[in-house]
Formats: sequence, C-alpha cells, structure tokens
Amino acid sequence: MNSTTPLLPNFLAGRWQTGAGVGTPLFDPITGAELARVSSKGLDLAEGFAFAREQGGAALRALTYTQRAALLGEIVKVLQTHRDAYNEISTANSGTVAKDTAVDVDGGIFTVGYYAKQGAALGEHHFLLDGERIRMGKDPLFQTQHILTPTRGVAFFINAFNFPSWGLWEKAAPALLSGVPVIIKPATATAWLTQRMVQDVVNANILPLGALSVVCGSSEGLMDQLQPFDVVSFTGSADTGRIIRSHPAVAQRSVRCNIEADSVNSALLDPSARADSEAFKLMVNEVVREMTVKSGQKCTAIRRVFVPRALYEAAAQAISAKLAKTTVGNPRNEGVRMGALVSAEQRDNVLAGLQQLKTEAEVLFDGSQAELVDADPAVAACVAPTLLGTRQPTSARVLHEVEVFGPVATLMAYDSAEEAYQLIRRGEGSLVMSVYSEDPAFIAQTAAELASSHGRVHAVSPDVAALHTGHGNVMPMSLHGGPGRAGGGEELGGLRALNFYHRRSAVQASTAALEQWANVPVFKA
Amino acid sequence: MNSTTPLLPNFLAGRWQTGAGVGTPLFDPITGAELARVSSKGLDLAEGFAFAREQGGAALRALTYTQRAALLGEIVKVLQTHRDAYNEISTANSGTVAKDTAVDVDGGIFTVGYYAKQGAALGEHHFLLDGERIRMGKDPLFQTQHILTPTRGVAFFINAFNFPSWGLWEKAAPALLSGVPVIIKPATATAWLTQRMVQDVVNANILPLGALSVVCGSSEGLMDQLQPFDVVSFTGSADTGRIIRSHPAVAQRSVRCNIEADSVNSALLDPSARADSEAFKLMVNEVVREMTVKSGQKCTAIRRVFVPRALYEAAAQAISAKLAKTTVGNPRNEGVRMGALVSAEQRDNVLAGLQQLKTEAEVLFDGSQAELVDADPAVAACVAPTLLGTRQPTSARVLHEVEVFGPVATLMAYDSAEEAYQLIRRGEGSLVMSVYSEDPAFIAQTAAELASSHGRVHAVSPDVAALHTGHGNVMPMSLHGGPGRAGGGEELGGLRALNFYHRRSAVQASTAALEQWANVPVFKA
Repeated sequence: MNSTTPLLPNFLAGRWQTGAGVGTPLFDPITGAELARVSSKGLDLAEGFAFAREQGGAALRALTYTQRAALLGEIVKVLQTHRDAYNEISTANSGTVAKDTAVDVDGGIFTVGYYAKQGAALGEHHFLLDGERIRMGKDPLFQTQHILTPTRGVAFFINAFNFPSWGLWEKAAPALLSGVPVIIKPATATAWLTQRMVQDVVNANILPLGALSVVCGSSEGLMDQLQPFDVVSFTGSADTGRIIRSHPAVAQRSVRCNIEADSVNSALLDPSARADSEAFKLMVNEVVREMTVKSGQKCTAIRRVFVPRALYEAAAQAISAKLAKTTVGNPRNEGVRMGALVSAEQRDNVLAGLQQLKTEAEVLFDGSQAELVDADPAVAACVAPTLLGTRQPTSARVLHEVEVFGPVATLMAYDSAEEAYQLIRRGEGSLVMSVYSEDPAFIAQTAAELASSHGRVHAVSPDVAALHTGHGNVMPMSLHGGPGRAGGGEELGGLRALNFYHRRSAVQASTAALEQWANVPVFKA
Repeated sequence: MNSTTPLLPNFLAGRWQTGAGVGTPLFDPITGAELARVSSKGLDLAEGFAFAREQGGAALRALTYTQRAALLGEIVKVLQTHRDAYNEISTANSGTVAKDTAVDVDGGIFTVGYYAKQGAALGEHHFLLDGERIRMGKDPLFQTQHILTPTRGVAFFINAFNFPSWGLWEKAAPALLSGVPVIIKPATATAWLTQRMVQDVVNANILPLGALSVVCGSSEGLMDQLQPFDVVSFTGSADTGRIIRSHPAVAQRSVRCNIEADSVNSALLDPSARADSEAFKLMVNEVVREMTVKSGQKCTAIRRVFVPRALYEAAAQAISAKLAKTTVGNPRNEGVRMGALVSAEQRDNVLAGLQQLKTEAEVLFDGSQAELVDADPAVAACVAPTLLGTRQPTSARVLHEVEVFGPVATLMAYDSAEEAYQLIRRGEGSLVMSVYSEDPAFIAQTAAELASSHGRVHAVSPDVAALHTGHGNVMPMSLHGGPGRAGGGEELGGLRALNFYHRRSAVQASTAALEQWANVPVFKA
C-alpha cells in the first residue's frame, strides 16, 4: 500500500475535516495502483447533521424556488469548468472508456442543468399548491387546499459505486431545488469523483454553508443521526436496502426512505418480428449496447432478452457477432471499447454470478478468450461480455432472480406474448423493460400490461430508431425506480422528483384565509 | 367466560371459515359481558392471499373505474340497510354514545359514498395517465408519458380498535376503486362490527369473490404472506408500526407500506386573541369536543392546547366549565354524553399515561369525582375527562411525547407565535393541528409554517364557525396521515388516495404509440 496517496477530506459542519487513521484505499481497477484514501473516523456526525439541518436548511428555505434554481445553474458552470479533471478521475478510479465516463459525468451535469431550468419556472415562492381547492360541504366558504412544503430536515444519500457523479446529482439537484440540504455518502470504491465535485462546488461558494456536505469512508453511525423530518435515499443492493429500511430511523422514526435496488430488467421483441425486420436489428443493437456500456454495471441494464422461439438462434448469432467486436482492456487505449469493472471484488462477484446463471443456461457467446488490451489479466478487473441463453425460461429460477452486475445477459425463447409478460413479471419488480416492435398497438398493450411491475417502459420502433434515448439511460424527465426487488422507489420524473423532499398537507380553512395564497402556483409535474 | 357466544367466521379464499379453538372473547366495555369470539387459528393463509391476489385481483382489474365505483355505490346501499344493527354492535362492543357511533358507522358509509361518486367520473378505463407527455429531446416524435396502473397484488389492512367501520372503509373504498382486492384484519377488541359489515357485503354478492376478505383474531403469519406487488396499510401504535416496517415483506421485498400512528396533535389560539374574542370561544368548544368525542380515542384528537400566556387561566376555566357538564357512563342512557373506552386494558393504559403526564403538569380539571351513570365503576371501562396544564411547556418533555389515548389534554402557555410553532413541532410529526384566529393572514402564515410537520392544518375562524368540519374529523377530501411519529403515511385526500394502490411508471415511446391512449384521462386529484 502506498501511504503517500492523499487522505480525501470530508466536508461536514461547514468545514473540511480529515478522518482519523490511515483510511481505506481507492484503486485504479486496471493497474491496481492506489489513488487516494478515505476515512470518516472520528467525525462529529451529530454536529454535522445538526449543522446541515439547522443552518443549511434554514438558509435554503429562505430562498425561493427560482433562487435555488439559479444556484443549480451556477453549479453547472463550476462542474463544466472542471470537466477534464472529472474525466481523468473517472478513467483512473472507475476504469471507464470515454463514452462511459460521459454517461456518469456529463449525465450528472445535464441533470443539474435540467432542474435549473425546470425549477426557474416555479417562481419566487417558498411552497407550492397541490391541486385546486375542494369544498368541504355545500357552502363554498370552507374549503380544503393541499400544499407542498419543503421538509425541515436533511436529505441523506447513500450512493452506489457505479455512478459517483450522476448518482450524486440526480438526487442532489431535486433536493436543493426543494430547499433541503444534502449530505452525500458515496460508495468507497469510487468516492473520489463525488468528493472532488463537492469540493469544487464548495470552493466556488455557491451554496449556503451546510447545504451540501460529503462524508467518505465507513457509513457507521450515519443512519443513527436521522430524525423524523429527514429523508434518506439509497441506491445499491437489496441486502443493504433491507438494513436501511429496518434501521430505527426508518422503521421507528418514520424517516422517509427511497430505495433503488438491483433488478433483473428485460427486453422484449415483438412476437411478429422476423430475423430481417427492423425491430429485430434495433433489439440486437440495444442488447449489445446495454451489455457493454459501463461494462454492464448499470442498475438499468438489460439482463433478460425475450425473443419469439423461432428467432432464438438468429438472435444468439446476431448479438454474439456484435459482442465479438468488443475490445476489452485499458480505457486509456483508444482501441478499447469496454473498460474494467470498478474493482477486483466486483470482478470476483461477476464471475461467481456467472457460474450461478450457467447452472440454468447455455453459453451462447464467451468473450473471455480474447486478450485484454493494454492490461494485465492478473491485475485488471476486466470481464469480457458473455451471452447466455435458455430455450426453457419457464422452468428457470436463478435466471429470473439473480442479477450479475457485469457484461452479462441471458437470451430466452418465448411462445406467446402472454407467456412473455408472465416471465418478465418473474423479475418481481424491475427498473425498466424495453419493447421492440413496429406496431404501436402492441407497444401500448405491452406498456399497459407491464407498467405495474416496472418503473419505466422503453419502446423502440423504427420511427424513433435515431431518436430514442436508450433502454438503460436514465433521463431526468422520466421516473427512475421500480417496485418490488427494484426497491420500490421513485426518483426523477421531471418535477415529480420534488415530491420526495416536500410534505403534502391539507389545509382546511375559510376561503378568506386560502385567498392569501392566490398567487402561489399549483404544482404540476 | 360464556362459551355460548358465537365464534365469528372469517371470509377467506372465497368462503366462510371458522378458526380453530375456543377463540378470543370480545366484551361489552360497560357491562363486561362477553359478546362474541374470534379465531384465525388453522386458516390456510397462503391459499387465502393467493386467492385474493389472483382471482379477486383479476376480476377487479377486468372492470373499469366507473364499474368499480358503481360497486361502491351498491355497498353503500347494503350498509345503509343494516345501519341499525351496526349501531347496536357499536354501542355494545365499543361503548359509544349515538353521536360517537355515527362518527364511525356513518363516517364509514359516507366515505364509501364519496369514492363511489368521485370514481364514477374516472370513466370506462383500466389505468390513468399521470401528467402530460414530455418531449425527450428537441424532436417531438419520442416522448415520455407517465401512467398509473393498479398494482397486481392484495391490499392488506391491519386496523385499529377505535374505528372498526370507518377504518375499514376509508381504506377499502380507494383500494377497491383502484382494482385492488382487500384483506382486512381488524383489531380484536372491536372486530365484530368489521366482521359484520364484510359479512353483509359478501352476502349481498356485490363484489367478485376474493375482492373483500376478513380475518379476525391473531395476526400471526399474515405479514409473511405479502409479496412484492402487495401493499400493507396499518393504523395503530408506533411500536407495532415499527414491527411491520421491519418485517421482511416490507424491508426486503419492498411491499409498499402506509402507517398511520399515534401523534400528539395541537390546537393554537391566535396570539392576539382575548378572553372575550370569538376565536377564544371557538377554541374552547373545539377542545372540549375533541377531548370527549369517542372518549378521546381518536388519533386526531387535540392533546396539546397552546394559548397566549395571558389567557392561560381564562382558558383553563372555560374548558373546565364545559367539561364539568360531561356526564359519563352507559351509552344506553340518554343522559350520558360520553361512553366508555373500548376495553379495561385501554382504561388501565389511560390511567397509567395520566400519571406520566402529571409528572410535568398540574391538574386543571379532574372529572373523576362525578359518579358514572348506569355503570359499575368496578367493571365499566369509563374514564372521566381530565384537563392538565403547564405554564412552562418549553421545559416539558413527556407532555410533547406521550399520547394518552383517552379524554385527556394539556393546556400550555406560550409567549410568541414563533415559540408556539417550535413547541408544536416538538410533537415530531402529527396528524393535525388546528388554529383559531380572526386573521386570515395569521392563519395562512401558521399553515405554511406548520404544514411540513402535519398532515393537516385545520383553521377555525368566526366566518366558518358553523361550517368547519372539526379538528378531529377526517374528511375524505383531505389528506389523512402525518410525518414522523404520526407514521409518515398518506390516506384519503380525495383521489390522491388512489396513488397508494397504483404504480407510477414512465412510458418512453414514439408519439404514434402514445397516441393509442388519446382517450385515457389524465389523473387529477
């Protein structure tokens, strides 16, 4: 271990604080080199959370939506200024090629910019009306008006290793716009980028002190700080999600909790498709892209690919042919199309998961025979893409339940649309499914059938081949989250994201009192 | 124990099923007589939940909103037919006087009728649009449309003893309207009324089999049945709420969970009020009503009464004078204005809670010296109203934290509106607070300040003296629930109630596909 790497400071209670001890090291997943260290040991967490809640919260709530939106606009400018540094950190610490880095870094900046623009339209107000007034009886003089007010607590985020930038900003932008201070605890493996972005924003003096804090390292004791009006948002494994939801802060003190967990997402090819149809080609392209972008380390990536039985072999061949062109290795080499997983631990997890899936599936494509480019296979956390397949998905169990968080997907043959719907639902709740079809009626039917088990349905048809935003890309205007094993959360979805940071209340009063709010806008997602 | 009282059958898996064993007895809280028994022992719960989920759910989802609303209308007719029987059961099993019985029985029927009417307007559709389409980029051809679809699971309700009728219907009406089958587990002490209402609706053959089930007795094993697309709604103590939220169904399988727990609700008199002002009189009336209706056994009842310091004594006298007129005893005697608590256990809890509060408060009125009417004090679960008070609420702790679920409230003196707001927030999240003022600006300011810690703000001003619906009455058009210790839930609020039973999803597709839903209405609360 190289003890000369910097111990990244935390920003808490309005000041930079270095944790105790030597800290936990962060590595380059390609070279194995140590990059930095993090420690949250010895921090006065109670002081830090109280500072954010009281000072940060009061200062943010004193601003209007339009004023807070303007601050988001300032954040965008600062982040754009330092974009090269973020790209370098991402390459080094996440092992991502340039286009994968962009999904995280530019995706995060884009999302802040989206909320800066949307938020500006909310106006010079401190709360919002929810719906119109409703009469409480025949006489119109006594009515109920629902309103949305910012919660008087902190928003605490526990984030995943795969999106150190986007994962921070897709949550922080709606929180700050809502007037709720943010404390971010990034995943240790890739915490550097999160820490650096917060550092740049803090140093630019954009936000009131206490509005944005970062704690890197162990999460010990953090949940214990949460009080009834705080909220917690977690992205990561279902197992950690269970621990968070069982914590007394949530279970007992009713801290509002949003969880976005892993899920076994699906792609569905129209039953009437042929091997030469446009829908087939669009599906193949999207599956290959989803398997390889960020080395398959996206919660939204396609894991199960449902094709009509007659197209099983054609799909296997077409997907495999494209995967064979995916060069894997050091992202600094321009010939490389897919970089590393974030850590050796993740590589081991993916390889172990693959073994599990193989108990129920055949291997249709195995990329592991190709040599890594510019990377030592004994050191680099690289895993080549693997396409598995089964002609009997109905009798499978592991394939519908186990998510391997890497460049892995399983092709499945189905006999009818109804059977495909049932098989897709066996994921027990997913973030997203995509449907590939030339038939608007089939797309609408599939969406209405599968919406209740998915946070998002993404439909690809030839008319939007060049326009669609991708199965796995999370756009700020669409809801992100899914029921059941996907965690039951809701993020983004345009201004719907503000719901999580606001309390809805009914105000029953005389019309004269409610008239005081005549100029307050009605919330509209 | 009288072993000849009937063992009430459960309705599960589409048939009446009597539990094993002698069962748990239900009593008349005035006479101590045994009324009936309940048992859920030996029921095949897995079969029952699967039947509701599959048969009941499919049948309900095959209907449109308008069709399901019509079924609610039929339920109203059946319940009205049997209203006398419900009133008798309530008097016997809950010990309530006629006007308190009406809050539960008629309140429940009114709420079903409200959703029958609101639901009819949703039309012949199977799902709803949520907001308008949003472009995903500059080109308008690819867009996102959020939709709300009924969850494909059961709605499981664990209800409180104080509202065996209203507590059932305020949850079941929105669930059934949404197309989600209901399984109700009433609190054992007062389960008879719930069981009887379900029995009447089942016998009237209104709903598809599996749409409405009832299990009385122990809740053992019930939560274990829940699967990812089910939802659970609980009303009761914070302690039981914690157990439910920590159960693997919720913590691990992300079963959506709504909790409505006890809270320490407040009333606030305008700082500019005088002892002869109208606001003062309105506040006194409402405090007395809230303390005595249902013997104070309402989650929404006023527990803390904040008055300007100069009015502390005047308020104590005015409230006490009215409480002195509250005759307590057997609800069958027409001279009685307040009946019993639901059980001897609750009486013991209230008396123990009173002792706790008294460690920080003085006794301003003690009704316990008056004789009970037509009731044996050694047997009847009656507790007379008690008004406590403190001039130093800032230094109190127990008074802001402990809810005594009976005819008990504490008067508190405050020095400024800002101090009163801070003291009210020390309830750490409440269902409702009420404000008494002649000033529309003060009402609006108070509502905006306190909304984030309350599910509802109820404002009483002289112009609505004869119109306002009462601090503690839960009206279906207003949200019911509150943050923090109130459980963090949201019920009712007009059609907002449907949110809990629907999943929100984003559908990203070509405009041609989204045009298929051109006639589906946009959800509007």
